[in-house]
Amino acid sequence: MDLSLSAVDLTAALVDIESVSGNEGQLADEVERALQAYPELVVLRLGNVLIARTEGRRAHRVILAGHLDTVPVADNLPSHRGDGRLHGCGTSDMKSGVALQLRAAHLVGSGALDPAVELTWVFYDCEEIEADRNGLNRLAQSRPDLLAGDLAILLEPTNGQLEGGCQGTMRAAITLTGERAHSARSWLGDNAIHRAAPVLQRLADYAARTVEVEGLTYREGLNAVFIDGGVAGNVVPDRCTVTVNFRFAPDRSEAEAEAHLREVFSGYPVEIVDSAPAARPGLDQPLVQHAAAALGGEVTGKLGWTDVARFATLGIPALNFSPGDPNLAHRRDESVEIALIEQAETALLRFVRTPVPVSLGRSTS
Amino acid sequence: MDLSLSAVDLTAALVDIESVSGNEGQLADEVERALQAYPELVVLRLGNVLIARTEGRRAHRVILAGHLDTVPVADNLPSHRGDGRLHGCGTSDMKSGVALQLRAAHLVGSGALDPAVELTWVFYDCEEIEADRNGLNRLAQSRPDLLAGDLAILLEPTNGQLEGGCQGTMRAAITLTGERAHSARSWLGDNAIHRAAPVLQRLADYAARTVEVEGLTYREGLNAVFIDGGVAGNVVPDRCTVTVNFRFAPDRSEAEAEAHLREVFSGYPVEIVDSAPAARPGLDQPLVQHAAAALGGEVTGKLGWTDVARFATLGIPALNFSPGDPNLAHRRDESVEIALIEQAETALLRFVRTPVPVSLGRSTS
Repeated sequence: MDLSLSAVDLTAALVDIESVSGNEGQLADEVERALQAYPELVVLRLGNVLIARTEGRRAHRVILAGHLDTVPVADNLPSHRGDGRLHGCGTSDMKSGVALQLRAAHLVGSGALDPAVELTWVFYDCEEIEADRNGLNRLAQSRPDLLAGDLAILLEPTNGQLEGGCQGTMRAAITLTGERAHSARSWLGDNAIHRAAPVLQRLADYAARTVEVEGLTYREGLNAVFIDGGVAGNVVPDRCTVTVNFRFAPDRSEAEAEAHLREVFSGYPVEIVDSAPAARPGLDQPLVQHAAAALGGEVTGKLGWTDVARFATLGIPALNFSPGDPNLAHRRDESVEIALIEQAETALLRFVRTPVPVSLGRSTS
Repeated sequence: MDLSLSAVDLTAALVDIESVSGNEGQLADEVERALQAYPELVVLRLGNVLIARTEGRRAHRVILAGHLDTVPVADNLPSHRGDGRLHGCGTSDMKSGVALQLRAAHLVGSGALDPAVELTWVFYDCEEIEADRNGLNRLAQSRPDLLAGDLAILLEPTNGQLEGGCQGTMRAAITLTGERAHSARSWLGDNAIHRAAPVLQRLADYAARTVEVEGLTYREGLNAVFIDGGVAGNVVPDRCTVTVNFRFAPDRSEAEAEAHLREVFSGYPVEIVDSAPAARPGLDQPLVQHAAAALGGEVTGKLGWTDVARFATLGIPALNFSPGDPNLAHRRDESVEIALIEQAETALLRFVRTPVPVSLGRSTS
């Protein structure tokens, strides 16, 4: 893989190496080999996770993180250009972001760009599948030292906008129980589906918060995502389960989100099915303000959950930034706007080279 | 098959010939061969449906109907006796009833019993499966002439009680629609599951009628039997379907039952999924009153739906009567009480031989 290609050509080269979750080996090999060519970078590989670091004495360290995997290919490889866009599986989510990471590595590694901060690149696997296989999640648990830093930039699709932090997400199951009976003698039973009426009414009546955190606006939501009940066409059912998804702003911890759900559904058993924390945007920190200014965009709150929360768990503020379009992710007609790749590259490189004000002092991390 | 056996031994012999729905051939063969031995009976076979008739000049004709098939065997064959019961697949539902039909055929066919009414025996297949394979249903549609009569006695399990008519059953689907969206931006969507709240509330609030028809009490019921909605754990769903089952008394026609459902769920789309009519008990008819008195029991309203409705559709009143226990039907531990077989046999034969009052006149059918 030739990292001296333009960001757009590099995106196409990355897209054309199929790397569906669990099958990132070849792409990781090629990226590793390319990074090993730069003596300035210390490269480490753990499974299909690659870490590259500058090891100078600059005052702050910034992590550039992105995943190598894609959702399954859907007759949308190899990539092709058209209408000012690059089309293909992973173009938006997120090989255009990985291309920008690699462009920065090439310029820094070859000495063409003198970075204002120490940099750590993380390329990881299995982001599109279950959390316990996620390469960044595993790294954060097994080797958090490799993720040490003062700011992370996650190159997940944002349409070239800057998005701070992310909302948390929690799924919970509310199970109504009753008594089974033949529907011809239904008074002998107790219909669990009927008992779901007030639960659904609470959801219909729920007034979700819109809240400001560090100057960014987050909008919560609480929704039934599944409902399931029934035994047979002639049986009064004894069980009905409503599964809800709560998207919560970064001013709530997971424990607070859970307590809120239990309050909303008081009187009903609430079982937490899964949960991922929100991430504060970190805009109260001068380095994050500096980065936002250098990246040149207005920051908005990230509403979807992303791996920035894994950095937040380690105490590292994180921004989402890349040219990919989140609305095209995972689609058969996935594509990315070529001009946006170029604009985002310009912004990212400007940030890498912009001197950090001395007034910010040295990192304590 | 030796029809001179006792009703209990005959039940065991019938049970021990496996005849799961669709596989009634061997049992139909044996029953046909046994019936053909009686010159008094005219025997006809259509597929695995057997019809036997007396063809005298008595004033009324009574049909004795029962199905030959069972639900799938569940390690509960061959039959065995214990605790005063006969155990095995089909003992209650309904080979003990078929045994009583055959006992009456043997006694009438051999001249040992002079019946007070003309008799038609119907033995049919595929009662336990989809309605369009049901042998009685097919016969009622293709050869209703063979079912002509003034009263039908269906030997479905009633625990030796007399049950008149049956309630109707109707299933309907109420589908709520909304707008799909990512649950992280749920305000862009419209949650179809939440919209089900008032539908379930109407069901919870529904006051089912208890109604007298021809002196019998019927109790209706309206229940959700299924609810289903959801696309994925992170999607606001655009569709939720509530399937309800309405059990309605014989004072409502199917059209009236449907109109009632549409009224209960006014404002929502109601799609009728399937429907089977109720059957009036026929107790306003002197012959039915005579039969009930001769069978010796108090008559109650049949709450479950049975094939008596197929006779009602042909204008023939019908009673449910047999020694089987409806609560043990379809169970692995299915059994029938031996003393009840004997008591029901006595009652049925008493009815067959009891002269019909001349005041009832001749049948017009």
